[in-house]
Amino acid sequence: MNLLQVYEAVRQRSEQICQPLQTEDYVVQPIPDVSPPKWHLGHTSWFFETFILKPNIIGYKEFNPEYNYVFNSYYEAVGARVIRTNRGNLSRPTVQDVYAYRDYVDTAMEGLLSGPVSAELQELLTLGFYHEEQHQELLWTDIKYILGHNPLFPAYAEHFPQGEKLTGDTVFIPVKSGLYHIGHEGEGFYFDNELGRHTVFLHDFAISSSPVTNAEYLEFMEDGGYQNFRFWHAEAWDWVKNNQIKAPLYWYQIHNQWFNYTLGGLKLVDAAEPVCHVSFYEAAAFASWKGLRLPTEFEWEVAAKNFNWGRRWEWTNSAYLPYPGFITAPGAIGEYNGKFMVNQMVLRGASDVTSPNHSRCTYRNFFHPHLRWQYTGIRLAR
Amino acid sequence: MNLLQVYEAVRQRSEQICQPLQTEDYVVQPIPDVSPPKWHLGHTSWFFETFILKPNIIGYKEFNPEYNYVFNSYYEAVGARVIRTNRGNLSRPTVQDVYAYRDYVDTAMEGLLSGPVSAELQELLTLGFYHEEQHQELLWTDIKYILGHNPLFPAYAEHFPQGEKLTGDTVFIPVKSGLYHIGHEGEGFYFDNELGRHTVFLHDFAISSSPVTNAEYLEFMEDGGYQNFRFWHAEAWDWVKNNQIKAPLYWYQIHNQWFNYTLGGLKLVDAAEPVCHVSFYEAAAFASWKGLRLPTEFEWEVAAKNFNWGRRWEWTNSAYLPYPGFITAPGAIGEYNGKFMVNQMVLRGASDVTSPNHSRCTYRNFFHPHLRWQYTGIRLAR
Amino acid sequence: MNLLQVYEAVRQRSEQICQPLQTEDYVVQPIPDVSPPKWHLGHTSWFFETFILKPNIIGYKEFNPEYNYVFNSYYEAVGARVIRTNRGNLSRPTVQDVYAYRDYVDTAMEGLLSGPVSAELQELLTLGFYHEEQHQELLWTDIKYILGHNPLFPAYAEHFPQGEKLTGDTVFIPVKSGLYHIGHEGEGFYFDNELGRHTVFLHDFAISSSPVTNAEYLEFMEDGGYQNFRFWHAEAWDWVKNNQIKAPLYWYQIHNQWFNYTLGGLKLVDAAEPVCHVSFYEAAAFASWKGLRLPTEFEWEVAAKNFNWGRRWEWTNSAYLPYPGFITAPGAIGEYNGKFMVNQMVLRGASDVTSPNHSRCTYRNFFHPHLRWQYTGIRLAR
Amino acid sequence: MNLLQVYEAVRQRSEQICQPLQTEDYVVQPIPDVSPPKWHLGHTSWFFETFILKPNIIGYKEFNPEYNYVFNSYYEAVGARVIRTNRGNLSRPTVQDVYAYRDYVDTAMEGLLSGPVSAELQELLTLGFYHEEQHQELLWTDIKYILGHNPLFPAYAEHFPQGEKLTGDTVFIPVKSGLYHIGHEGEGFYFDNELGRHTVFLHDFAISSSPVTNAEYLEFMEDGGYQNFRFWHAEAWDWVKNNQIKAPLYWYQIHNQWFNYTLGGLKLVDAAEPVCHVSFYEAAAFASWKGLRLPTEFEWEVAAKNFNWGRRWEWTNSAYLPYPGFITAPGAIGEYNGKFMVNQMVLRGASDVTSPNHSRCTYRNFFHPHLRWQYTGIRLAR
Repeated sequence: MNLLQVYEAVRQRSEQICQPLQTEDYVVQPIPDVSPPKWHLGHTSWFFETFILKPNIIGYKEFNPEYNYVFNSYYEAVGARVIRTNRGNLSRPTVQDVYAYRDYVDTAMEGLLSGPVSAELQELLTLGFYHEEQHQELLWTDIKYILGHNPLFPAYAEHFPQGEKLTGDTVFIPVKSGLYHIGHEGEGFYFDNELGRHTVFLHDFAISSSPVTNAEYLEFMEDGGYQNFRFWHAEAWDWVKNNQIKAPLYWYQIHNQWFNYTLGGLKLVDAAEPVCHVSFYEAAAFASWKGLRLPTEFEWEVAAKNFNWGRRWEWTNSAYLPYPGFITAPGAIGEYNGKFMVNQMVLRGASDVTSPNHSRCTYRNFFHPHLRWQYTGIRLAR
Repeated sequence: MNLLQVYEAVRQRSEQICQPLQTEDYVVQPIPDVSPPKWHLGHTSWFFETFILKPNIIGYKEFNPEYNYVFNSYYEAVGARVIRTNRGNLSRPTVQDVYAYRDYVDTAMEGLLSGPVSAELQELLTLGFYHEEQHQELLWTDIKYILGHNPLFPAYAEHFPQGEKLTGDTVFIPVKSGLYHIGHEGEGFYFDNELGRHTVFLHDFAISSSPVTNAEYLEFMEDGGYQNFRFWHAEAWDWVKNNQIKAPLYWYQIHNQWFNYTLGGLKLVDAAEPVCHVSFYEAAAFASWKGLRLPTEFEWEVAAKNFNWGRRWEWTNSAYLPYPGFITAPGAIGEYNGKFMVNQMVLRGASDVTSPNHSRCTYRNFFHPHLRWQYTGIRLAR
Repeated sequence: MNLLQVYEAVRQRSEQICQPLQTEDYVVQPIPDVSPPKWHLGHTSWFFETFILKPNIIGYKEFNPEYNYVFNSYYEAVGARVIRTNRGNLSRPTVQDVYAYRDYVDTAMEGLLSGPVSAELQELLTLGFYHEEQHQELLWTDIKYILGHNPLFPAYAEHFPQGEKLTGDTVFIPVKSGLYHIGHEGEGFYFDNELGRHTVFLHDFAISSSPVTNAEYLEFMEDGGYQNFRFWHAEAWDWVKNNQIKAPLYWYQIHNQWFNYTLGGLKLVDAAEPVCHVSFYEAAAFASWKGLRLPTEFEWEVAAKNFNWGRRWEWTNSAYLPYPGFITAPGAIGEYNGKFMVNQMVLRGASDVTSPNHSRCTYRNFFHPHLRWQYTGIRLAR
Repeated sequence: MNLLQVYEAVRQRSEQICQPLQTEDYVVQPIPDVSPPKWHLGHTSWFFETFILKPNIIGYKEFNPEYNYVFNSYYEAVGARVIRTNRGNLSRPTVQDVYAYRDYVDTAMEGLLSGPVSAELQELLTLGFYHEEQHQELLWTDIKYILGHNPLFPAYAEHFPQGEKLTGDTVFIPVKSGLYHIGHEGEGFYFDNELGRHTVFLHDFAISSSPVTNAEYLEFMEDGGYQNFRFWHAEAWDWVKNNQIKAPLYWYQIHNQWFNYTLGGLKLVDAAEPVCHVSFYEAAAFASWKGLRLPTEFEWEVAAKNFNWGRRWEWTNSAYLPYPGFITAPGAIGEYNGKFMVNQMVLRGASDVTSPNHSRCTYRNFFHPHLRWQYTGIRLAR
């Protein structure tokens, strides 16, 4: 595919994800971590308009200058009209306005991409593609939260394909101690946080060939896992008590049976599926209950060629920190990853809703340890 | 008009108010005091369904039993599916669903009202009408908040009629001390809080013939009214400082000029209009700055025949408390007003967006002293 | 007694109240409403120093200029050394320092009061006496809170006299409708909130000859009073649920028996004593459960000569608002009462720990409706 | 020294630290991170009583069974007498009671240590010594906070020795890439978090021979370091804005000069001293402003033999996580460190107030990244 085709494919994919939604589903923001789908659609367009169209097309006229503070990631005070609000309080621009905005940007982009494209611009375009693909994953997770926390539990699609079922035996795969190379290498896109490529020394370890299942997690629950402080980090225990956590996110107990909300609607929990939507706190408590531990992100990366992964993100016991030689790029683009490198934990792998280009074994995802609305699961090590 | 015609007129009026809205405007809830318009439309239908259709039509089938906890004023825990959310987080039922719900309820109601109607049912129906009319006023004020706190400041209607302009001199109307009768008397609908009709003794007082104008309020602002704690109640001063209050709600200073949001869009503040969207705290501080005071609700009611009122609610210095002989009706309906009789202040009058049947000089409106999203103004006494 | 003797008596009484305390008891502030005893001792001295000694003694040298922002009621930013703290975080000045401060002020005051005293100064002195007496009542209630919320439940004094026991029948005393005079009249000290003397019209009512007992309140508790929202104001119900309120303040259930903390230590709840330490919310809910109501402050004042009162404050159903003709005095002294006239309810009567001069039937006490650390009880009306 | 002598020396050191305090200084808790000194004195005694005396002396009678929930680190619900409070709200036990408790425990311990001591008991004793020594450091930092946030700024001791002054040139010490051994080895006491001894691979790096001085930090401040979001982690920037952070803790600007509170009182900031009382956020922002970075804890440990350290804790860019092979000991003692291994950053070194036995280059201290009341400084790497 040429650049124009790639551009169009990326852009269309965002809209396809939203195709089953009702207008109202585009608007709400039930928790701060979740953004309204129309915001994702507008923000990714604003990114192309701001970083590519405006600097590269002489006389480019913005679709609407006010969109700068509607679709910028961080609201800034603009003159005296500062209004304390958040994304979920904004009924305007409407969904139709946002699609008109996308069309407007797409037309201008298609014009730009019909001509010659400098290497520098190409690099920025690629970042724009990956940026929109990251928001595609957030579209999935945010849509799930919006529908899955509505008391009517509407399905995203009636016959949404079910999750992976695990079959066969789980074994622990041993890895020998020694020096290993970590981080991105070679061609292809990567994020700044995957650099620099570097060496680590690992001690002997073993890692599970499959993720923890719902059946195993139910055992933990039934054994009083959520009631016994010994399994939990001190602040995890506070989190459990303050939020009365008793099960993974999206699990609802109805007439003594556990259901979980899926994009196909409310379903009985399937014992054979990997447990999903758990926090780092829960992952670590489960491991502790098992007498095992979570792998580090280095162990995971080294061992990943020996097991199947990619159906859901896996919490590691590594904090999200820079690799040796990490450099923050100059300018606004440089803000991308470094500023989040404190108080978050690394996840490795990918999930059913991860965009295909984002599935590689050096990819470093990261979230705060209490968050659960991503597709997050558990793999054990020892 | 017969009962059926009244029913239809009331119901249509709610929908007419919403007619200029975009679908998205029906959904959001920028502050807890504001409800999404689709919630108002659903809740008023739920009221007729729950209190009239279900008890009076044998075999009545609810439109959707789940709507009980979506459109009830107070969410209750229903089984294990308790979900912490609020009205503005719910994308479903959609706007279209809500209109279908209204149609369903209206059809059933029309059937019921085609037959004979008992006196008891007629009383309940009247309460249903007044209930929906109260929500019509909230529809106006909530729509104004939703649009007026959007950074794009969309107009509700391009040529929305402007507010009242005050002309002529303001005078203080004297009222002699003596015994006066207070509260509702005679035929016609009234709320329980307007009873019992009773006697109060008032001392000599005088009350202004017109409300305070924007011009007068700007003087207070320019004289440092918001910076001098002496004019304010102790907790009002905390409110001013914690929320950095500097002007009435909907006022924005742009290039050193004061604009205010109106349903016709952002306009220059008109000096001749009465000041609107001020809290009780601001009303009382303004009065203190003037060396005057707010009237009590009894003074207001006694004097009201001597001045024009009804274009905006007027804060009184009376707390919202029961009249002598006030009785709480039994059952759910009885919850109506009495449970709010603490920590709120009485407003008298009516506003441009009050439903016509709700404009009478014994009507007692009430809000917490810090609230400003209603059409609230100031009349002075001494 | 001459002025000097009165001064000395008032000042000694404050110190006598603190006499059984340990040094540590003077220091802590378990909730914002409670002040450390050493703060009360310092603040009342600061009042005399600031309003009497400094303006009236040429060349008066403050004990310590820094005490201005330690013992002022409201911390103000002083230069760049603003420190966010509260009274309970301050270990210095020490208790010994505070007593030295009292001695220093007393010596200067005694000098001043040995000479002639102008009428104006005499008025200010009287305010200072009443101010200190108000703080004496707060010393009692704050000391009770400090000791009664300590897990060791130390007694203030081993053989502290018990509360009043109610004997005899409770009857409802009828009062005829008509015009009554309300507010302070004649000689003697009064607070600005007791003015102006004015006329009210009251309808027929009846008021209980005795306050509600613990036995009656236990009936309410055992009948599920705290579990049934129908008895409660809407925001009272939120308060009950958010704070898991199940009994009056200081009540602890141990092995299925109810104990309450008294200044003599933890004791079995005495069924014959009047219930104490309830909020307005609880008082109103109890009345609602009984099918009765609380009296207004006017009803109370008019009826008070017909029953015994004064052993504990009684919640009325009147909000704390100015009387007709209320005038705020100019200057800092004028701030005294008017600024609290919003969102508080009036209490009438007096309690076991009220200073003798503060027990009169026109006295208006006031607190927010959720507060319970004062000696607050219930008298019913109908 | 024999065990008894060691015991007595440790115990006396805690009391010596408190010797200059006033009774009131023992009581307050201005922020949750700071504990009242009397709590430290009681808690360390409770540790010996609970883990050594009760299991080892038949018929041992506790000093006061209620102390279990006063001096336990984590308040637990005991029967129905649960009282929501915190350590700074407790006036009892008094300081005198706490010293009596220490005497009681010391007498029993001296009895026990006069006889033969098993190896197992000796291990537990050693933990008790180290535990009390850790609390000795907290006594210093907490006392400093209590006095340094009092508006009177009382000195702990009039002639408290000043901090270290830096002289001579700062150079960057290079370290070659390669395999290094990390963690405790050999005899002597260590905490569980210093295990297991393991190998890491480090890339070439260089580390500064001296910590950052106040002079350098003032440059950062004067260059607008606290106003420019580019230097800060995203959540650090929120912290700066929400708390209006403008300088290290204990710094106060008076008449355009910077003072800092020291245990000798308020002093002009000394440009030649190392900057102290900065958060991880500030340390990282300073490094970013310099175009440098903080060392990892492994770099620090490897390089530590080449520079002077030990006068204040140094923030590293390593999160506090278990070493390979880390094992949680069984039982209550096993809770010691592992449960804190999330959301905290490692500090290396020691400070002027660290107990002598706690100063070793494998020691891992840890705090949340926003905390500043410990003696925390900055060393740079590249």
